Amino acid sequence: MQFEKITIIGLGLIGGSLARALKESGQIGTVSGVDTDRDTIDYALRNKIIDEGFTESGEAIQGAEIIVIATHVGAIKETTEEIIPDAAEGSVITDVGSVKGKIVSEIESILPPRLSFVGGHPIAGTENSGVGASDPALFRGKRFIITPTENTDPAARDKVESLWKLTGSQIFELDAESHDRIFGLVSHLPHVVAYSLIDAIISEDDSDTLLSFAGSGLRDYTRVAASSPAMWTDIFKANKDEVLRAIGKYKASLDKIEYLLEREEWEPLLDLLSKSTEAKRNKG
Amino acid sequence: MQFEKITIIGLGLIGGSLARALKESGQIGTVSGVDTDRDTIDYALRNKIIDEGFTESGEAIQGAEIIVIATHVGAIKETTEEIIPDAAEGSVITDVGSVKGKIVSEIESILPPRLSFVGGHPIAGTENSGVGASDPALFRGKRFIITPTENTDPAARDKVESLWKLTGSQIFELDAESHDRIFGLVSHLPHVVAYSLIDAIISEDDSDTLLSFAGSGLRDYTRVAASSPAMWTDIFKANKDEVLRAIGKYKASLDKIEYLLEREEWEPLLDLLSKSTEAKRNKG
Repeated sequence: MQFEKITIIGLGLIGGSLARALKESGQIGTVSGVDTDRDTIDYALRNKIIDEGFTESGEAIQGAEIIVIATHVGAIKETTEEIIPDAAEGSVITDVGSVKGKIVSEIESILPPRLSFVGGHPIAGTENSGVGASDPALFRGKRFIITPTENTDPAARDKVESLWKLTGSQIFELDAESHDRIFGLVSHLPHVVAYSLIDAIISEDDSDTLLSFAGSGLRDYTRVAASSPAMWTDIFKANKDEVLRAIGKYKASLDKIEYLLEREEWEPLLDLLSKSTEAKRNKG
Repeated sequence: MQFEKITIIGLGLIGGSLARALKESGQIGTVSGVDTDRDTIDYALRNKIIDEGFTESGEAIQGAEIIVIATHVGAIKETTEEIIPDAAEGSVITDVGSVKGKIVSEIESILPPRLSFVGGHPIAGTENSGVGASDPALFRGKRFIITPTENTDPAARDKVESLWKLTGSQIFELDAESHDRIFGLVSHLPHVVAYSLIDAIISEDDSDTLLSFAGSGLRDYTRVAASSPAMWTDIFKANKDEVLRAIGKYKASLDKIEYLLEREEWEPLLDLLSKSTEAKRNKG
């Protein structure tokens, strides 16, 4: 038994999948789950995704060695503020948010010395959401990014690493700023790009006709743009500066292609497209 | 037997799949194939994809009721010029190009009165290419866009429709200009957008690290950008005006998101993202 008790707050796709993976590992005494939605708790108990369930965190976090905040990015700080009074001395708090810089520094500024916080971000997910879509294998072979700071207690960091290793994740350490720059470019920017493309299409008068031809290249984008708009608004908000920086870089590349097309510079255009193709062949 | 002889010039993914679908229909006396690559012809003969094969079009088009030009967009006009002297009176020429306006008007301007041309575009394809990836079911249930003009002989149009019905395609008529505007928006623009995104990522100093996180949203784009750069340069060239117009519309949508993000107008941003999500739910 590696941990006596772990509490997960927020039983969505990520929280539910983490609970399932931890239960399957057989290394946790009690997996306690918290969700404000009673039906979610009932579902999770009925399907043995958690050992005990609550709609409020007070009792759930008693004696928990690690408290995992698996809410949407926009609710992480508030949830942490709520649990601080009830959290026992030595408890480690961690999160699963897609943005780290702002969240980690805000939480460090409100955390009392008897508690530790370690930022985390499992690189896994699907376009589905909710506990009904949870999967114990979701994190297997995927990266878990851990973002300790100079204030992070090394023992707390190691506990969070041990927990996620139980899910089959590969642990990957980054500082919070690098994390936000990287994910601003490889995850948040692609979502901005997809939302912009769909917005351009649906702004046309004959958008129904256009969407009926989605199979011709648009389908992948409509899938990306089908992710939860509330979740993505929260992410863009929390990582505003890096997302704006990424958009700026993207616009420079788009302008380059537009310029070559306008000037009919076909050889340099072919060259630019060929380099992008190689990126996929080598790394994709 | 619906047609005595059909000749397909260019045995790539589309030409090869068409040959296979026509052979399977049992409605064609002879499926004749032309490809400048000897190995492609040998492969097609060995796998009974065609009944007879040639590396030059002269003999292949003798007696063909329909000649399908299935080369890259950039080679359609030149190929048509080459076959005109040898094509028999009454032959119908058609193509499978992803761009129609420029191609159709150029071909109509060089076509002698004894021949007919009908523009066509099967909406099917994969990121794979070549006769080895051909599939007789590729067009089944997919749209085949036919783009007759006021100069098109109605009998020639109907012959091309009958041919493609044998593949299981649904026939959909558009004028060439509407076709190019629609595909400029739903197919060519998404490729510009993907190539721009990959270009932005690989222009960063740590592009290898960034690409190692491609799973976080970038993967769909790297797949789109993996399509043949030569083919896409040809398409952008042939549909330059509509692609530029589509880029203009796209930039307006991107600017809208950037503006809302800069001004921290979260409610209007959520509203914009929500509308894009609905487009997928309703039509995707």
